[in-house]
Amino acid sequence: MNDLLKLSDANVKQWLSFLDATIIDYVNSLTSDTNVVNYTNAKELSDSSVFNISSAVGDKQIEKDILYFLEKSVRTGHANFHNQLYGGFNLWSFVGEVITALTSTSMATYEISPIATLLEKTLVNKMSHLVGFTDAHENGEGIMLTGGSNANMVAMLAARNTKFSDSKSKGAPSGLVAFCSKEAHYSFSKAANIIGLGTDNLISVASNANGQMIAAELEKEIKRSLEAGKIPFFLGATAGTTVKGAYDPFTELNDICKKYGLWFHVDGAWGGSVALSKTHRHLLEGAQLADSFTWDAHKLMHIPLIASFILFKKPGVLRESHDGGGNTYIFHDYENKSYDTGPQSLQCGRRVDSLKLWLSWRALGDEGYEKLMDQHFDFAKRLTNYINQNDRYKLFFEPTFLNICFQVLPQKQANQKEINDFNLKLRERLLKDGKFMVNFSWENDTPFFRLVIANPQSQYKDYIAFLDELLAIAHEWGS
Amino acid sequence: MNDLLKLSDANVKQWLSFLDATIIDYVNSLTSDTNVVNYTNAKELSDSSVFNISSAVGDKQIEKDILYFLEKSVRTGHANFHNQLYGGFNLWSFVGEVITALTSTSMATYEISPIATLLEKTLVNKMSHLVGFTDAHENGEGIMLTGGSNANMVAMLAARNTKFSDSKSKGAPSGLVAFCSKEAHYSFSKAANIIGLGTDNLISVASNANGQMIAAELEKEIKRSLEAGKIPFFLGATAGTTVKGAYDPFTELNDICKKYGLWFHVDGAWGGSVALSKTHRHLLEGAQLADSFTWDAHKLMHIPLIASFILFKKPGVLRESHDGGGNTYIFHDYENKSYDTGPQSLQCGRRVDSLKLWLSWRALGDEGYEKLMDQHFDFAKRLTNYINQNDRYKLFFEPTFLNICFQVLPQKQANQKEINDFNLKLRERLLKDGKFMVNFSWENDTPFFRLVIANPQSQYKDYIAFLDELLAIAHEWGS
Repeated sequence: MNDLLKLSDANVKQWLSFLDATIIDYVNSLTSDTNVVNYTNAKELSDSSVFNISSAVGDKQIEKDILYFLEKSVRTGHANFHNQLYGGFNLWSFVGEVITALTSTSMATYEISPIATLLEKTLVNKMSHLVGFTDAHENGEGIMLTGGSNANMVAMLAARNTKFSDSKSKGAPSGLVAFCSKEAHYSFSKAANIIGLGTDNLISVASNANGQMIAAELEKEIKRSLEAGKIPFFLGATAGTTVKGAYDPFTELNDICKKYGLWFHVDGAWGGSVALSKTHRHLLEGAQLADSFTWDAHKLMHIPLIASFILFKKPGVLRESHDGGGNTYIFHDYENKSYDTGPQSLQCGRRVDSLKLWLSWRALGDEGYEKLMDQHFDFAKRLTNYINQNDRYKLFFEPTFLNICFQVLPQKQANQKEINDFNLKLRERLLKDGKFMVNFSWENDTPFFRLVIANPQSQYKDYIAFLDELLAIAHEWGS
Repeated sequence: MNDLLKLSDANVKQWLSFLDATIIDYVNSLTSDTNVVNYTNAKELSDSSVFNISSAVGDKQIEKDILYFLEKSVRTGHANFHNQLYGGFNLWSFVGEVITALTSTSMATYEISPIATLLEKTLVNKMSHLVGFTDAHENGEGIMLTGGSNANMVAMLAARNTKFSDSKSKGAPSGLVAFCSKEAHYSFSKAANIIGLGTDNLISVASNANGQMIAAELEKEIKRSLEAGKIPFFLGATAGTTVKGAYDPFTELNDICKKYGLWFHVDGAWGGSVALSKTHRHLLEGAQLADSFTWDAHKLMHIPLIASFILFKKPGVLRESHDGGGNTYIFHDYENKSYDTGPQSLQCGRRVDSLKLWLSWRALGDEGYEKLMDQHFDFAKRLTNYINQNDRYKLFFEPTFLNICFQVLPQKQANQKEINDFNLKLRERLLKDGKFMVNFSWENDTPFFRLVIANPQSQYKDYIAFLDELLAIAHEWGS
């Protein structure tokens, strides 16, 4: 035999010592003056010799490779990273990820992941209760999956297979139409493609200026579809839209869904975590009436990517919708068979994502998570005031949640096109400077910054520093 | 603000010191007399107090939680774990997973994962070349995704959207039928459900005794479908079937696909890695003619779960099939736009899986991977001889790959039902003892052990120890 993957004590210790030093340096860099990103153009970066794989390189080179990887990666844990719907660094969860990698097993059966299976079940139960699907001591129906997009797709698939019970075996019926708001996440469109609905059969419902779906418009669209001979079957509402952070009017939407027999899904990938706060969970009012609910713990529960859940109100939906048979080699009759999560999943091998969330929840408790949520809301409120009080910033939408959308106005009089170009130029400069990272979006032809308050490492002054930086660049440009 | 997720130097160091000790202990346990699993019944395990999440517990308790998690988890890295199509522990890849968790970013855009995007591209190019889809210096078409099941689904979806170009927007056409062998992985059945084909429209083609699809039977089934007015569009062939490790006759199957206009997919989730060995890559002969190819690096490339690829022969297929629009908030026009992998993916947030494979490949090189592959084949051959030479074991199929399927025969004369019960009882005892872990499967009503040679930590004597253990238990039972 050869000894290529032999584990010597000395080798393990050498790597742990390298990792320790690297992790300490990295973590220290997250709250310091270190850049969020060292911007490099893709073509230039491609020239690096690290992209050669063919001959073995020694451990010293591997160490250099890792340091180079870190140098050329975005520090999403940095206090100045506000670019995505996540950010920051959670030490307990990180430790959980390390242990997950150490044990590297699959969630297909209880047999090969006994405790992780029960942890996932615990989390599904707890979150189902928080959403309002179950009482505290009831079992929830749900599973962890590969992201919010996948969760929304699974919801749409379950809706189709539940409402048209032979579509699993016979194929997708034709004539189905689904609905979501024009502010909904683009994963609904991908889901419509995947499950064979077709993107044209996903109807985009009008929203109000704050980004909430207009219930009356939904009813109009349903009626229009019915008149055209179509079969409305699914509504994807949103708790915390991606750009504006809007919560759709769930109670009203549910009434319409019930009236016309539509499956009612709520995409709370981003905004579901408000269920953790007594002060703010009212935003979800009515979502407990839904048939299914998406919740990404890797966003506002501050867990390393990916930690996504799909939750269902009705027990048994997942298995009915997913189980495809032909799997006798893996799912056996034995005393723990009912605990196997494989038949409820669209995956066979499935990574253990439960440990990292469980450890974080054990460490923070419900109270800790509530404090983190409330802190984000507090910052968002104060930042909104700050922006409103400075006439160099123009707030685009009154935030109900943690997305702050605004433009920077140049000092001199300018038309809208000039203002837009100025903001795009600011964003590009920001990215290339690398000190802060904040994304932008568009409303019609108008771009604006979308500042996301989702980073538990960021203090209020860090957000202010970002806003000040924009004006400093403008000042440097003389505008 | 509150300081719940504040990172103090002392706290980070304390956790790294705990991790170091835990990892060293764990790694040492992988080649020792420690059990592979401490079997616990699910109901009993559920009673543990660790499943309470509500009040915060202190770091000392979190440490205990982690040790409890490890105690109750399967040691898939243990030299006696041969239960799944993966196993063992790869230190370089483990280090890669730690760094991935540290940087915790998403693969949606080049902007937030610059170097990881280029690493993935490098791997896709290299593996496309190994499969025979491209020349060494051409770019490959492909992406990493959430597992082999997902890869097979994406292949079927791409086939549908490519062959029926308006199905993305208009919905799945009716009347489509797809084909795979009766030995194919159950993910094809799940895929048929998901994409709206319907599981009844996935035709199961007969295999020969060694598990290879019979090309003539495929042609018969295609003709039968055509006569029934159906539209055959997809064949899922397999490189290394799950149970028997069979390779379908790709060249013949490709001829039939071309003749009838079917998309030709090869599921090499398990067996694709033979491309790494000059001696054994002939098993893939003809697979280079396919339209798409699934390859799980977390199986025979010994990477922590998940590291899966879907590869396509034709450039541009993924984007054409997947891009759903409605994503202006994230995919911006800028100099690196063409490097964004999001529009090619069904995910939005997507974990960085490339780093762990890249580090392992850099460390082992092509030559190292070839040695590992060849070693597995060598063991499989010797074990097959060992089994054939001992009349207490009955080999079920002549292995072409790394799956060894056999029964243990009781000492006394027994009928087939008694032999079957004896083997099931042996497996149950094995699982509860926890010293070895080897799965079983069924052919019709006959169960047999499926010993998988996929663990780079296992020496030849470890496999023999497993075979001996079975006879030792039988001896203890007096049978």
